[in-house]
Amino acid sequence: MNTGAFNLVNAAWQAGVKVCFANPGTTEMPIVAALDRVSGMRVVLGLFEGVCTGAADGWARMTGWPAATLLHLGPGLANGLANLHNARRARTPVINWIGNHATRHLAFDAPLTSDIAALAGSVGWTRTVKSAEEMAEVSLEAVRTALGPPGGVASLIISSECQWDTCSEPLPITPPSILCKEISSSTLYEAAHLLRKGRGGILLGGSALTVRGLNAAARVATATACGVWIETFPSRQECGWCVPHFPVLPYFPEPAREALANTASLILAGAREPVSFFAYPDQPSRLAPESASLLTLADPDAGVDAAIALEALAQELNAPAVVALPRAVPAFTPSGQSIDADTLCRVMAAFTPENAIVVNEAATTGLTWNVMHASNAAPHTMLFLTGGAIGQGLPNALGAALARPDRRVIAFQADGSGLYTPQALWSMARESADITVIVCANRRYRILQTELKRAGIINPGPKAQSLTDLTQPVIDWTALAKGFGVPACRVCTDSELADSLMRSFAEPGPSLIEAVLV
Amino acid sequence: MNTGAFNLVNAAWQAGVKVCFANPGTTEMPIVAALDRVSGMRVVLGLFEGVCTGAADGWARMTGWPAATLLHLGPGLANGLANLHNARRARTPVINWIGNHATRHLAFDAPLTSDIAALAGSVGWTRTVKSAEEMAEVSLEAVRTALGPPGGVASLIISSECQWDTCSEPLPITPPSILCKEISSSTLYEAAHLLRKGRGGILLGGSALTVRGLNAAARVATATACGVWIETFPSRQECGWCVPHFPVLPYFPEPAREALANTASLILAGAREPVSFFAYPDQPSRLAPESASLLTLADPDAGVDAAIALEALAQELNAPAVVALPRAVPAFTPSGQSIDADTLCRVMAAFTPENAIVVNEAATTGLTWNVMHASNAAPHTMLFLTGGAIGQGLPNALGAALARPDRRVIAFQADGSGLYTPQALWSMARESADITVIVCANRRYRILQTELKRAGIINPGPKAQSLTDLTQPVIDWTALAKGFGVPACRVCTDSELADSLMRSFAEPGPSLIEAVLV
Repeated sequence: MNTGAFNLVNAAWQAGVKVCFANPGTTEMPIVAALDRVSGMRVVLGLFEGVCTGAADGWARMTGWPAATLLHLGPGLANGLANLHNARRARTPVINWIGNHATRHLAFDAPLTSDIAALAGSVGWTRTVKSAEEMAEVSLEAVRTALGPPGGVASLIISSECQWDTCSEPLPITPPSILCKEISSSTLYEAAHLLRKGRGGILLGGSALTVRGLNAAARVATATACGVWIETFPSRQECGWCVPHFPVLPYFPEPAREALANTASLILAGAREPVSFFAYPDQPSRLAPESASLLTLADPDAGVDAAIALEALAQELNAPAVVALPRAVPAFTPSGQSIDADTLCRVMAAFTPENAIVVNEAATTGLTWNVMHASNAAPHTMLFLTGGAIGQGLPNALGAALARPDRRVIAFQADGSGLYTPQALWSMARESADITVIVCANRRYRILQTELKRAGIINPGPKAQSLTDLTQPVIDWTALAKGFGVPACRVCTDSELADSLMRSFAEPGPSLIEAVLV
Repeated sequence: MNTGAFNLVNAAWQAGVKVCFANPGTTEMPIVAALDRVSGMRVVLGLFEGVCTGAADGWARMTGWPAATLLHLGPGLANGLANLHNARRARTPVINWIGNHATRHLAFDAPLTSDIAALAGSVGWTRTVKSAEEMAEVSLEAVRTALGPPGGVASLIISSECQWDTCSEPLPITPPSILCKEISSSTLYEAAHLLRKGRGGILLGGSALTVRGLNAAARVATATACGVWIETFPSRQECGWCVPHFPVLPYFPEPAREALANTASLILAGAREPVSFFAYPDQPSRLAPESASLLTLADPDAGVDAAIALEALAQELNAPAVVALPRAVPAFTPSGQSIDADTLCRVMAAFTPENAIVVNEAATTGLTWNVMHASNAAPHTMLFLTGGAIGQGLPNALGAALARPDRRVIAFQADGSGLYTPQALWSMARESADITVIVCANRRYRILQTELKRAGIINPGPKAQSLTDLTQPVIDWTALAKGFGVPACRVCTDSELADSLMRSFAEPGPSLIEAVLV
């Protein structure tokens, strides 16, 4: 006889789930045992649940297939929620296995009892498993639901008896397939019509940011002279000198509205209607002009592939093929000067290896990279912070590196947000993941200093200042990295930065570079 | 005109809230500005929200009065939930100020939008503020609700316009008082009757663990020859050689049931009915014998003070005063040998300064301390992990130290659980808090290795083993501490441990001792 725990893990494995990012406790012991019985399933320990959920997100962004997390009751899930929020916004397929007390024990309200369903429900589909007998079936259902459409987070709440009870051998499982809806010809016609009228625009997101999607967008742009923008916080984007380059829709609402001001119609290709990230007094939420016609060409939640839709649109418009002009990677000659955000990005653009994965949670410096420099670098894939819940970067880099051991991962990391989940460094060392962590050490929450000004607080008092300052004491990232087993160095000049980057890219395993910014 | 943000902060200040543990973002900028305008309100920055909520819990355990936290929307709250779960279980008064988008912006589902009320509701009372005009009133209501009875977590969800809108000067505020219900004479009579019948027992929790409560329990025990136990995970307990000492109800259900097996009646004084922490196959949830009569003398949720109730019970029983026999602190002569859990506790017992606050999240080693050694040490206060959500210790120690700068705090910390919220070390350094962190570095999740065995997994496979192992790589706590600005050393022998403890106790500010356990 199988246990429910074995059926859960085995069904997921058969459905294509290859890795479990785990931080288990007592209530998950039968699943821990089952992981050993499903020999192909990789298990990666995180010291903190936010590492597990962020790594699962990174894994799925690079493979298109969900990883599982193993979490300990409500508090374990709570610790992983911020990165699940980001996964939800990225529409990343993620499966959570969350242990719970035996059902008969719940009425006694033991210390770890809490409303797990309320927490899990806040990030997506949630199912409380009823018996060991149904474990294989719900395990598969979770994979299917995570894949979508709409894709996203699928959580199973699994009480102890569902894990340890024995049950029958389940039916063999066929891995689910990803369903893709075809685009309607009337939508295509309407989009082409709007763009032909002139002053058109396209906002790209989701699979529109693959090479295929970007090429199709370039064709459409050439044929109709429309504007093309990339959504401000894409989940995954192909970048570099050999792919068509479009501007990123600005983060702050004023320049974003200005960018779109002249647009008569905005076609949404894998992106949703652009709205302000935050609300400000006397600023509208919508970014497109009120007069603009909005048309959804490919709704990211409906399973229409935005790249295919853009190709169909290009064809509808009889758009000619576009040959992207290869741009040369600008050489960088180090001068021994101190590093600012722009210098850091220029050095990175010069040295980023071809086919790298850049996980961008570098906040203000990261926006500089996206807007100004990523298109100059060698071809690479970028993963971005999607839900605004900082602490995604290092865990995402871990998951991406394990998913693609053939590619160098660059964790391009702000210091403030890196401190939400620094424990990911330990798992990087444990798994010998090929990751170069670049910490942009500006030693402040620079974005909040900007937001204080935007809120009219021009001369912040000592408390407001202290809440945006990270210098008392200065955080020593090289020591933190050493503590977690990752070799590290600190650089203060562009020459040191270039040297350390080249050294890191040449060596297997993780290393961390603390770039002190002026 | 005031802003809503100012009225919120000012009302809390007038109601006795003296500190705000903050990790704000853009949506909380008006509150950040208001903190500067309320001059007495202390502001402490946490690098991670779990630090803020755990510190607020520690502060309130030592003062009896809530601190505020300032958190950034749903993800910020999510990061703080685990320690709010612990506060809920400890019935600690904690107030959360959680920013949200402007109400008009919510419909646009911007990236950081999420169901904040669902998250906050999982840990206690939650109110979504409706207008700036009501900010002072709800601020006071949150303080009142947190104080109880039943005390606990009170969360305000505060949209941007409630913060930045102007509003009228509120009415002056009278700080709420803590209501205490009197114990009924029939309950007293019934308790005395049960104990007089013989084979009685008392389970102590909450305020029964003050010196006053423990003394009264000792009187009752002497008068009736009843058994007395301390609940396994108390919020706060007075310990040491000059206070009556009772056994802790064991953690695992088998010895706990054995301890209570002969009990005909169990009186609950500030504790709830004892139940198993986890469920196991073929083990009941209840720990008291089915035949035992249970009587609630002081319900911790009903506002009956357990210490006063026990005093009344002692009087009802005409119990004589009991003079606790002073026990000598056992001297410890270092021998230069390696350190195991027992040695570590013996050294701690010998050197703990009088009036220290021991924040105990040392897991297996911490249970050894509680059961065997705390009663031998100089008189001190112990704060304990209450909800099983690990990561409480370091933040709790921070809050306790700021609440009581006159007392040395010892953060007695397991290495595994310390890695959930190590960011608290930075705030300790920033605030120059007098904290000695002792990390019990057994470099494994020892409790999980025990639980694997209990689940029948006698020869765990390589994956199960890897999920309980913290040696690949070994975590260097001295480097982590240095990274966060806290001086640290590593000790491997009892002599080194004794030396470093004495040095740390003599010096102001925080320091960390990594005690490598064999």
